[in-house]
Parts: sequence; structure tokens; C-alpha cells
Amino acid sequence: MPDTPRVSFQGETGAFSELAVEALFDGARPVATPSFEGVFADVSSGKSDRGVIPIENSLFGSVHINYDLLREHELRIVGEVKVRIRHCLLGMGGATTGSIRQVHSHPQALGQCRTWLRENLPGAEDVPAYDTAGAARMIAAMGVNDVAAIASERAAAEYGLTVLARGIETNPNNYTRFLALARPEDVSADRVDGQAYKTTILYSLKSNVPGALFKTLAVFALRDVDLIKIESRPLVGQPGQYLFYIDVDGHADDEDLQRAIGHLGELTTSLTILGSYPTGATIE
Amino acid sequence: MPDTPRVSFQGETGAFSELAVEALFDGARPVATPSFEGVFADVSSGKSDRGVIPIENSLFGSVHINYDLLREHELRIVGEVKVRIRHCLLGMGGATTGSIRQVHSHPQALGQCRTWLRENLPGAEDVPAYDTAGAARMIAAMGVNDVAAIASERAAAEYGLTVLARGIETNPNNYTRFLALARPEDVSADRVDGQAYKTTILYSLKSNVPGALFKTLAVFALRDVDLIKIESRPLVGQPGQYLFYIDVDGHADDEDLQRAIGHLGELTTSLTILGSYPTGATIE
Repeated sequence: MPDTPRVSFQGETGAFSELAVEALFDGARPVATPSFEGVFADVSSGKSDRGVIPIENSLFGSVHINYDLLREHELRIVGEVKVRIRHCLLGMGGATTGSIRQVHSHPQALGQCRTWLRENLPGAEDVPAYDTAGAARMIAAMGVNDVAAIASERAAAEYGLTVLARGIETNPNNYTRFLALARPEDVSADRVDGQAYKTTILYSLKSNVPGALFKTLAVFALRDVDLIKIESRPLVGQPGQYLFYIDVDGHADDEDLQRAIGHLGELTTSLTILGSYPTGATIE
Repeated sequence: MPDTPRVSFQGETGAFSELAVEALFDGARPVATPSFEGVFADVSSGKSDRGVIPIENSLFGSVHINYDLLREHELRIVGEVKVRIRHCLLGMGGATTGSIRQVHSHPQALGQCRTWLRENLPGAEDVPAYDTAGAARMIAAMGVNDVAAIASERAAAEYGLTVLARGIETNPNNYTRFLALARPEDVSADRVDGQAYKTTILYSLKSNVPGALFKTLAVFALRDVDLIKIESRPLVGQPGQYLFYIDVDGHADDEDLQRAIGHLGELTTSLTILGSYPTGATIE
């Protein structure tokens, strides 16, 4: 990987995804991309060295669409990080909370901050925007003191805005887990001593006959391999077919995990190892 | 339940949630409510007879926030339905696809229809809105021929708009599963002969020691009870604590399921039966 890798993320400069890019890759050159498909395309084509995608949020669940894109592309997971989604009210340098008449942001962010907005800006009008960072960029371009955006503190720095209030979301338990992606040929086989690894596996079962899932989990339990995440999903258009996402403790090269995966292959209709990667940090 | 029950849902009249209300309750009087919390409050206080909430979407995953609200409230699940999210381009009677210069909708809906919009309305500007039905209401109020909304066909009927194009989403495998909620004292013990039932259970485990989850699933597998959904979720702020959502085949009053649940109680740190309800239909 180059010293200053190009890393594609979905969203605009200043988005929460960009915080994940910086946490995952020192010296990264973030590449803003409008769609998740764009992130996969950038990495697959070599336009970018790495990609970063959100895979689950503590309030809003797994991003199935990104699991689908992982199934459709040949990319591998090479890292993860959890980022706290901490919303701030951003305005121009001359703005104060009292001067704000309009608040722009993504509907989900406006919804998450509704209690604070009602208490602190009861007369202000909410205006939906495409994304939080885009709202911040627009406020900076408007340059007026009575309009604010809800976005990350990072977006304030990016667009030269002032943080009028910090952590205004109702539920502070709002974390998004991001994955780092690379082309298979760019995945290093080197492992860091003492580093904990995690392996993400997708598999499908032909039917939900009692015990089928249970047997697939037995391959790990019988080898004392720890399960970190499990999620089932009915395959749309294929009645009775189920897809499972699991994260297990350890590296796919570990002897016990290697055996468990071999055993799993005997029980499943499809099986993909999406990657083994260092267990990630949480950015508060 | 009254013949014309009041049923709260989140969103505006014409929202996809309202389709779920109508599919679940004959003769329902839908009550539009701005937030999910509002739906729970309406039902808990008796202001409404029932509530309807989205619990998972085939592209965007489980709505964890509604699982959290289910944990915090005493309501029970009494039904389910899956609704296909089929986006339409809606305009005034005089509008044609060629006349549209602006398209209003929720950012997620605009994103899902981006391919169609690029091909068919390359010059049109996307304008984010709070929700799909709200965008339709606004277009109707504006009454001009060069602005359109992306929303359900139901919203067109509701606001007197014309469907300019139907099913314009890129990924047609877009379904949302909705749950019907009632106060515990309003849950009928009567069962319909020959009707399949499903039971939703939440439980937590103190740690992810190898085998802990496996043992909890054994209580069902050993009794040939079929698992329909499983999802794990780390409990934020409680390291090592995991919450599991499972849906199993059958009614909690069934002898085998009753025994399995008793056995499950021996292994878990918390256990809640959210309800047993008829397996629902899919509305295309």
C-alpha cells in the first residue's frame, strides 16, 4: 500500500465516513464518492487503493446493501473501526444559538436531535438535506448568521464553521461500524504479533429445517471458536433460503478456524470468507 | 378491539407504513404520528387501539431503535406484514415525465431511484424531503407541472396526484416488515385453527464465551423448534453483554415452545417474550 493511499468513502468531505477513513489509514487521501457502489467500483478498478463502508449502526442496524455489494464484488475486508456519531450544531462565526431560524441536515440527523432542537431552538424550522456534511458545506456557502447545520465537528473544521452546540443527539449510544476494503491481491498475509483478529463469513443454507443453523454453529462451538456477531436474512425471491452473516474470533489461517470453516463447507450451499482483519478500535 | 380501531403509525398520510396499517387491520382509522416514540406512547396511553412499526427492511436491516422501544415499553406484538417498497414518480394531472425539472423525496428514496432518474430525467434536480408522503403532499399543494415527488402509489391517490412512472427503484428486492402492537391486556388468547404462528423473543447473555449462544439455540434445536430469524447485537456501554433477537416457529403456548422457553430462562440474563402472532402475508 502506498504511504498516502487513496481511500474512497461514500458521502461528502466532512462526513462521518471520512473520520473512519482517517482512523483506519494514516496519511490517507480520502476520495468522496456519491454512492456505496462507487466505493466498490473505485477499489475494484484500482482508482483507489482502499475503500471504507459503513456496515452497521447501533440504532439503525446492519447495512444489508453493503453485505450485498460484498457478495457481488471480489473485495476483501482488511480492517474495521467504530465511530461515535456525535452531532453538533454548526453555524457561521457570527451566529449564536439565539440567532438561528433554520436548521439543515439529513432527516435522520434532524430526527435524532429533535428533543434538543425543541428545547433550545423552539422557533427554528427544520430543513431536510442529502447528508450532514453537505448541509454544513451549504451553510458555509450561504454565509448568513440565522441558518445552521447539524453535522460532525469534523465538518465544522472542514468548512470553517463554528460549533454552536456539541453532542445534541437524544440517544448517545449511536455508533457506526465501518469496514476497510481492498482488492484480494493487495491483502497482506503478514500478521502482527499479539494482535487480535476477527473473521467475517457469509454462508447460506437451503432451508430452515430445525437444526440446520444449529449444526453450522456447532462447527465453531465444538472447537471453542467464539462467535462475535450473527445475523440471518431471508433471501428475497428464494423462499426457504437463508443467508447468514457471522463474525468469529480469530484469523482464517488459525488451525482451529481453518478446520471449522472446512466443516462449515460440508453444511452450507454457499460460503464466502470476506476477510480476517485486526479487531478495531472505537473512536469516541 | 373496536370495529374501526385507531391505529398509530409513524409518518404522514400516504406513507408506506399506512399501507401496512390497512393490510393488518380491516376498517382501521390510521393515526399519523411524527415519531416511533409517538406510536408507542399512543398505544400505551390508550389514545390508539393498536400501533404499527417497521422492524426490518430487506436492504437496510433491522430497525434496532424499535427493538429498543419494544424493550422499554410493555406492548406486545400481535401481527406482522411485509410490504414491498415500490417507488413511483408522482406529479400533477398536467405533468408529463418530460415536463419535470425538480424531484422531491426522502434522500433514501432519491438514492434508490438514482439510476432511473439519470436515464429518464437527466436534467432534473433532486430535492431532499423529510419523507416520501410529505413530498407528495407538498407537490400537490404547489400545483405546478414541473415538480414531481417520489412516493407510493397510495400517496398519489391520497393527494390527487398522477403516477408518471411506477416501480422506478433500482433494486426491486426492497421489502419492509412491519409489526402490529397492542397493550398486553388487549391481546386475545384465542387462536385460529390451522393458522401458523411465530414468536419473537429477546434475550441477553452475560458474555460471548464460546458456546453460550450455541447452548441457547440448542434449547430450540433439541425440541425441533424452527428458528426463522436470529440477530445479535452488542449492548452499548456494557462490554461483553450481547442481546439477541430471535423469531421462532410456533406459539408460546405450544407445549414444546413453552418448554424451550423455560430452558432458555436457565441460560440467559434477561428474557422477554414479545408476542406470538399469525405469520404474515407479503403485500406486493
